[in-house]
Amino acid sequence: MGSIKLISSLLFLLFMRITITTTASHHHHSKKNIQAAAAARRKPCKTLVFYFHDIIYNGKNSHNATSAIVAAPAWGNKIILAGQSHFGDVVVFDDPITLNNNLHSTPVGRAQGFYLYDKKEIFTSWLGFSFVFNSTKHKGSINFAGADPLMNKTRDISVIGGTGDFFMARGIATLMTDAFEGEVYFRLRVDIKLYECWY
Amino acid sequence: MGSIKLISSLLFLLFMRITITTTASHHHHSKKNIQAAAAARRKPCKTLVFYFHDIIYNGKNSHNATSAIVAAPAWGNKIILAGQSHFGDVVVFDDPITLNNNLHSTPVGRAQGFYLYDKKEIFTSWLGFSFVFNSTKHKGSINFAGADPLMNKTRDISVIGGTGDFFMARGIATLMTDAFEGEVYFRLRVDIKLYECWY
Amino acid sequence: MGSIKLISSLLFLLFMRITITTTASHHHHSKKNIQAAAAARRKPCKTLVFYFHDIIYNGKNSHNATSAIVAAPAWGNKIILAGQSHFGDVVVFDDPITLNNNLHSTPVGRAQGFYLYDKKEIFTSWLGFSFVFNSTKHKGSINFAGADPLMNKTRDISVIGGTGDFFMARGIATLMTDAFEGEVYFRLRVDIKLYECWY
Repeated sequence: MGSIKLISSLLFLLFMRITITTTASHHHHSKKNIQAAAAARRKPCKTLVFYFHDIIYNGKNSHNATSAIVAAPAWGNKIILAGQSHFGDVVVFDDPITLNNNLHSTPVGRAQGFYLYDKKEIFTSWLGFSFVFNSTKHKGSINFAGADPLMNKTRDISVIGGTGDFFMARGIATLMTDAFEGEVYFRLRVDIKLYECWY
Repeated sequence: MGSIKLISSLLFLLFMRITITTTASHHHHSKKNIQAAAAARRKPCKTLVFYFHDIIYNGKNSHNATSAIVAAPAWGNKIILAGQSHFGDVVVFDDPITLNNNLHSTPVGRAQGFYLYDKKEIFTSWLGFSFVFNSTKHKGSINFAGADPLMNKTRDISVIGGTGDFFMARGIATLMTDAFEGEVYFRLRVDIKLYECWY
Repeated sequence: MGSIKLISSLLFLLFMRITITTTASHHHHSKKNIQAAAAARRKPCKTLVFYFHDIIYNGKNSHNATSAIVAAPAWGNKIILAGQSHFGDVVVFDDPITLNNNLHSTPVGRAQGFYLYDKKEIFTSWLGFSFVFNSTKHKGSINFAGADPLMNKTRDISVIGGTGDFFMARGIATLMTDAFEGEVYFRLRVDIKLYECWY
């Protein structure tokens, strides 16, 4: 029965080892480590590409304007974007979202919220807005916030949350200015990369 | 001693398997998978229900107004909400939070921040605000952002963070218009469902 | 061969146990539990300390002003902060970030966004802004939102996201008023504590 004893010992040792490993694993599996692993791969769990189109109210285009200046610094007004790189102008918008760069293609949702210009020397803005969907394809909203140094070819802002199909989403949205006409129309391409998906 | 050899082999194989399993588990335990599991259950780790009360300044009610129009489009002003579904009006608020729908019950905190109206055809708004608590029951803040298509019976916005008792909170807040009187008073019911709790 | 049988049985039982343990571990390792563990420790994965400096435009200091009132309530204007604890004033800013409390030390980035005053009885504000870095040390942005009851010695707001070096960051920023001169200059110390780090 010596072999049984030995086996028991071995099994006991093995079992201890397993227990230890499992415990260690519990400790190792901190959120931070898991995220480090995720970051190492850094593959989005969902990607989406949209365009949105902004037509600023200039006193003459109320029929098709999708946004309006609602606040301006002492040296500004609400019809013309202010001097000094529009510093201090705040714009509220309700812009159509499309799947391609054609303003007249069927909107799949609305981009709603505000942006403000926040640098005197160069055009930069800060955005707080949502993509709001209510179609057969997507229902729910994606919420965004972040700085947009808009003279850069690409700029990253944060996906800070989502609802419905985008419940609890987090990630990054890369903005690209796809068109810019006078100071009335611009079109942004938005590459949404979600890294936290609850669906 | 053949049995010992066999045992050793078996143990070795078993151990290999355990190692493999553990390694696989490391890979499986990506944040995404864990969240998928959480989403499958999708049970909040904390739920809270509050009401808050907004009385907009209209030029005559400074004694009890809790909010004021601070920005408006070219066609608006700061005493009366603008035409076109109040598009472009920005309102700053400091509203009492109560546990029931009675404006005069003891406030348990303050809802502070802003909302703006962002659609011409129908009432929709965008909110950025905090619930600020400093009572024996709750200390800390919950931060919210999101789109509020306020003609819908229920609307979901994001809980984007929290401090104190709500340290690192994330989740969803469901808004319901509980009362709406003239264009001066409204009351929202807020069902907060946190899905990330650090406490 | 009795011992072999026994060993097999033992190994089988052991293996079952391992499988069960692993499965349980899968269930245990919900995001919530992991976060509970993280919260128990509650050690930031990254800490950063910065100062930023705000010089509000007052009609005479356009050469060095870094911010401007862009919206105000009916009783306010854009040159002087309004009565009633500045309630309703909205300020857009592009403030230099420094490593120490010296306004004239070399900026390491810009704090860009807005704050608004949101209480009549006492000074409190709500902030939505980003730290934008583009140096050899840091590239990327950190996005913040939250309530700032600025008469308190320390106030916590949320880190709601980040990009570049701060990809997917979440955490808390503790604000301290480091200087306050007249109603034109203030300096904030910001202790950033990230609890979700993807790098």
